[in-house]
Amino acid sequence: MVGKEIPDIIVGRLPIYLRALRHMREDGQQTTSSQELGKQVGISAAQIRKDLSQFGEFGKQGTGYLISYLIDKLCEILKVDRVWDVAVVGAGDMGHALTRYQGFFNRGFRITMIFDNNPDLLGKKIGDLTIQSTDALVSALKAGKVSLAMLTVPATAAQKITDLLVEAGVKAILNYAPISLNVPEGVIVQYIDPSTHLQRMTYYL
Amino acid sequence: MVGKEIPDIIVGRLPIYLRALRHMREDGQQTTSSQELGKQVGISAAQIRKDLSQFGEFGKQGTGYLISYLIDKLCEILKVDRVWDVAVVGAGDMGHALTRYQGFFNRGFRITMIFDNNPDLLGKKIGDLTIQSTDALVSALKAGKVSLAMLTVPATAAQKITDLLVEAGVKAILNYAPISLNVPEGVIVQYIDPSTHLQRMTYYL
Repeated sequence: MVGKEIPDIIVGRLPIYLRALRHMREDGQQTTSSQELGKQVGISAAQIRKDLSQFGEFGKQGTGYLISYLIDKLCEILKVDRVWDVAVVGAGDMGHALTRYQGFFNRGFRITMIFDNNPDLLGKKIGDLTIQSTDALVSALKAGKVSLAMLTVPATAAQKITDLLVEAGVKAILNYAPISLNVPEGVIVQYIDPSTHLQRMTYYL
Repeated sequence: MVGKEIPDIIVGRLPIYLRALRHMREDGQQTTSSQELGKQVGISAAQIRKDLSQFGEFGKQGTGYLISYLIDKLCEILKVDRVWDVAVVGAGDMGHALTRYQGFFNRGFRITMIFDNNPDLLGKKIGDLTIQSTDALVSALKAGKVSLAMLTVPATAAQKITDLLVEAGVKAILNYAPISLNVPEGVIVQYIDPSTHLQRMTYYL
């Protein structure tokens, strides 16, 4: 890391670049240009060059970017050159879908625990994982040193579970519950709420 | 509408304000302030006042905002003072979870169709909806005048389905497939990809 603070909007675009580069590599491609990458992701070539230049010199005038090299660098920058353990809290439909989703592992994540407070679900399995009680959440996350969680509980339960996640040492929460969460300094939350995404689009219709 | 173009970043915050206001109303609250709303959503009071002032005068010095009035206004602005029909394409785990999700209707949306190309799924039901073949997608969406879709197919199928959605007259796509989509001018795409959200957070860990 270079010591200066990178705007979060730029950080947010890096995973998009990384994803597109991986698709290119899967298609057997070895090099690309900011123009081509830009066309893939719907961002201008100039913006991409500017974003990447925040982190170093990854391309060459004329030859462009070596895809595998740029993938490695982006993985390093985003710290997904390793695999992070993730806990899911909430074993409803969304918790099930996420736990069974095959797309995490090759992008730096694996779900290692799932919790719910419904006694009927405790002990049941989703894939290889056994649904555990939220009563065990803090101790299990601490023991497993899990610092990432996905929250798929109802809005009414979300803040209470968030407080437990924070207590357990979780530093980043991907929140699917349709409510804003209060977290202390040093804990990050990202939100996924399909209704807010849809509303952001209907504005323009 | 006031004729001037509002930055999309502001448009994107309105659904967050709306969601928080609804939670306040559910809790029986009748008025709020930009300070209180700001604390709920993690955005400064000044920013909220500035955002809302783009659309008119909704609050009063001293008394703040009447919650129900502000909810009505935000629903009008975001065009969710009606209920939009939404099609889901892809009846896997995520398509199931979305179709069964109870949180859409009171936020302006209802899923009225679901499609998949897997012959084993055709004719099966998710709740009240029967899974239809993607072969019927264009004609069904045109007949139903559906302008919103959620895409939960594998990345490899996403662009092909997107082209069909565009052909069918869909104007806004919420894309869960982990790939960037190419759409013509006048069609909007929003992306939900948990891995990119997680990667945006691991950067900071």
